Amino acid sequence: MKSKATLNLCGLAAVSARWARDPDSVQRLFFDYATGRKIGAMTKAMAQARKVYRCVEPAELEKIAGSVHHGGIVAVVDAPRLASPVRGDPERWARERVPVLVLDRIGNAHNLGAVARTAAFFGVKHIIIPDTPEAAKPNDAAFRVAEGGLEALTVWQPRNLVALLRDMEAAGYELVGAATRDGRDRVSEIEPGKPVAILLGNEEHGLSPELDALCTRRVTLAGSGAVESLNVSVAGAILMDRVWGR
Amino acid sequence: MKSKATLNLCGLAAVSARWARDPDSVQRLFFDYATGRKIGAMTKAMAQARKVYRCVEPAELEKIAGSVHHGGIVAVVDAPRLASPVRGDPERWARERVPVLVLDRIGNAHNLGAVARTAAFFGVKHIIIPDTPEAAKPNDAAFRVAEGGLEALTVWQPRNLVALLRDMEAAGYELVGAATRDGRDRVSEIEPGKPVAILLGNEEHGLSPELDALCTRRVTLAGSGAVESLNVSVAGAILMDRVWGR
Repeated sequence: MKSKATLNLCGLAAVSARWARDPDSVQRLFFDYATGRKIGAMTKAMAQARKVYRCVEPAELEKIAGSVHHGGIVAVVDAPRLASPVRGDPERWARERVPVLVLDRIGNAHNLGAVARTAAFFGVKHIIIPDTPEAAKPNDAAFRVAEGGLEALTVWQPRNLVALLRDMEAAGYELVGAATRDGRDRVSEIEPGKPVAILLGNEEHGLSPELDALCTRRVTLAGSGAVESLNVSVAGAILMDRVWGR
Repeated sequence: MKSKATLNLCGLAAVSARWARDPDSVQRLFFDYATGRKIGAMTKAMAQARKVYRCVEPAELEKIAGSVHHGGIVAVVDAPRLASPVRGDPERWARERVPVLVLDRIGNAHNLGAVARTAAFFGVKHIIIPDTPEAAKPNDAAFRVAEGGLEALTVWQPRNLVALLRDMEAAGYELVGAATRDGRDRVSEIEPGKPVAILLGNEEHGLSPELDALCTRRVTLAGSGAVESLNVSVAGAILMDRVWGR
């Protein structure tokens, strides 16, 4: 058997979501006694597939997880490969009016996970991240914070993000950017039925000028001035609610 | 000098916000070299007040902060006392239409801090928490995550939360509850100009039945079903935006 890159999924929500979607991808399963009593169906199937599953002491679980935040269960799973869109994908997404989220160099994996949880809640199917080292990848921490959200969508890493966004716009997408300032558009004015992609920028620097310029609408959330800004996962949640909520 | 309870404020945003509001409450100041170059006015005033300020090595800063997330600066400050509202406060808040947030046993200090940051962004002046051990208090972690937001508002801890909410309703407040299910009200139907308090519940259990029953409107955020729920700080942000945003 060829060895593959793996990922530690922690917490029953994340593990259950992966199990429901793709049980074959679960390679090994470790859990504490309390959690073991809730996952009879999983362990039975693991046994039949001759895979390792084991009830362990809390200290060992913490060591396997590499974190105290293991939530009672750790699944070692195949790491997802980041897909690159192919010709025709943007047109198909647009036809199906698929909600898309573009994360322009979000650097913190916790923020990526938090955004993914909210995105899944709102029915987002595709998260697109640039192919650059500063962009957080879906790692253990992101999966833990996403609470199953990263199982409900595909993370794409196109070779050329600008070209992909141009294709999406040509296919009919509104590109709604979270502008750190001077964004005066309202999402309520978007033609009903138009597919929408929301673009969120880096935690410190916002959207790159190149991506900012591609947006068909730029929205700045107006605040009281008491704090400098919103956390990116909060700003993203508000935009998602304005576009896809209700 | 009587010794007072103290708190470690970490990060330049939090420390600057406290400094702007109440420089006398800053007892000691520790920072790394890079941050030291940005706070000349602070250190000068500390010197004049004969208070300790010191540029230290990263390892020592980490030890002082009790966390790797010190953001280059730690201020040891007087811990805020949690105020208890007095007769007449609800009426005064209602007259001034002050936005209020009620956190019913939010247990995680990071969530408290995240909510406070967003609340400050939307101009909330009062956060009310119950007087119970399960409710997270504004501690080091909460202040760090709030990025200055906890300086912009008062945290209240009434002896009797139910009585306070009844007084607020009598004074004219709409009490908008984040209901985990079956909340069918829309905040857009709230009479313009009415003062609003938003009630958020515990991370796992939501609002207590007693508080849920007090709400004048109950709102449930509808999701795709792909994840079980939103993080409480995200759900709170969406409600705040629906009520106070735009």
